[in-house]
Amino acid sequence: MASNEVFQYSIISALMDGVASHGTPIARVLKHGDHGLGTFHNMEGEMIVLDGEVYQMKADGSTIHIKPDETVTPFATVTFFRPTVTTRGTVTGKAGLKDLLTGLFPKARNHFLIVRMDGVFKTIKVRTAGGQCRPRESMVDVCSRQTTHTFEEVKGTIVGFRCPEYVMGVNVAGDHFHFISEDRQRGGHILSFETAGDVDIAAAQMVKFHMELPTEDDEFNEAELKLQAQGIKAVEG
Amino acid sequence: MASNEVFQYSIISALMDGVASHGTPIARVLKHGDHGLGTFHNMEGEMIVLDGEVYQMKADGSTIHIKPDETVTPFATVTFFRPTVTTRGTVTGKAGLKDLLTGLFPKARNHFLIVRMDGVFKTIKVRTAGGQCRPRESMVDVCSRQTTHTFEEVKGTIVGFRCPEYVMGVNVAGDHFHFISEDRQRGGHILSFETAGDVDIAAAQMVKFHMELPTEDDEFNEAELKLQAQGIKAVEG
Repeated sequence: MASNEVFQYSIISALMDGVASHGTPIARVLKHGDHGLGTFHNMEGEMIVLDGEVYQMKADGSTIHIKPDETVTPFATVTFFRPTVTTRGTVTGKAGLKDLLTGLFPKARNHFLIVRMDGVFKTIKVRTAGGQCRPRESMVDVCSRQTTHTFEEVKGTIVGFRCPEYVMGVNVAGDHFHFISEDRQRGGHILSFETAGDVDIAAAQMVKFHMELPTEDDEFNEAELKLQAQGIKAVEG
Repeated sequence: MASNEVFQYSIISALMDGVASHGTPIARVLKHGDHGLGTFHNMEGEMIVLDGEVYQMKADGSTIHIKPDETVTPFATVTFFRPTVTTRGTVTGKAGLKDLLTGLFPKARNHFLIVRMDGVFKTIKVRTAGGQCRPRESMVDVCSRQTTHTFEEVKGTIVGFRCPEYVMGVNVAGDHFHFISEDRQRGGHILSFETAGDVDIAAAQMVKFHMELPTEDDEFNEAELKLQAQGIKAVEG
């Protein structure tokens, strides 16, 4: 696949509906991208894909460097990221990043963005999903037990996407970021953050979108994938 | 692109919002499929793609065989259709076709289907959009002036898609069919139909979806692409 094209496996609505028992090998996902995010079997932990390496950030605070051939993902979004815009700056939280991205890409309201930030973060609060207690447990229920961690003065990388409003349900509309520390020991789904000073920001606009749906997966086939926009905003926003 | 993969250019929400002044060359769309449907510049007429040929079915009842290099489309959905299921049967209307497809593909509730039917139709009622009166006129307004035609004992072909609920806004959730007569002189977007006897039915399930968004298109960039599910059902259902 060419650079800066979105690839996703399955849809966020399936996760909302608890479809997470099966998945596609992460090695297959990596054929479509080297940066991105997602989750794992039974929604255990948060996935970040960085420079082609995949990490599982778990609720107990541990992080596992994943072997792509041996692990599946029920939902992931990746791209072969080649930045078209790079800058340095201080970013105050998700609201600051939102404004920054909108300023960098004023005509991308209805397109996708990929963003990566490298630097020192004054504070960064993440959540990690601890996994399903039973098959088909919904993502809202899984996230009701989510663990949060707050890191201070931590060096690391944020990777994430901005998706246009109209893909809500297929993916997460709006901004969605994961973080991993430079030592690859800590991270998760970002709830809030603030930079300690200037960080490196790299981003690209994306106009091509590719989606592959699960096959031979009865959980997926039987799920009633109704739009749960409020639920998605609550757990992924 | 491989067979039985969905390709779409732009999104139905953009059409709803009247984004139809520009588009992509139809020759580019045909690189991604030989069967499908869509519309034209300013929403003038209905598009059907059949065996790699493209026809514009206009509100005045005329049909034009399109030269793909010379015409653009603001929205189209196509696939390289290779039937995986073929059957013959009598089909009573859209409801009958809905049940038939569900029976043929019991596990495809959350996947895409492409379907083609060839035969004699006892009656078939189509609409053709007459085009925008001004740039950015909404699809609901365009379709409020739609022309309808009813054909009887007509031989021809139906081509269409079933899309899962969760893509509503990106494409048309549910069933969406266009028709063209065997002599390629009459057709449009199907409102209702009934077969005169057995017709040939061919279909395939699709699990890969590809979307390309407009670029350098200020109409698209500036559109507020909010989900208009009711509107889409009204004009495309």
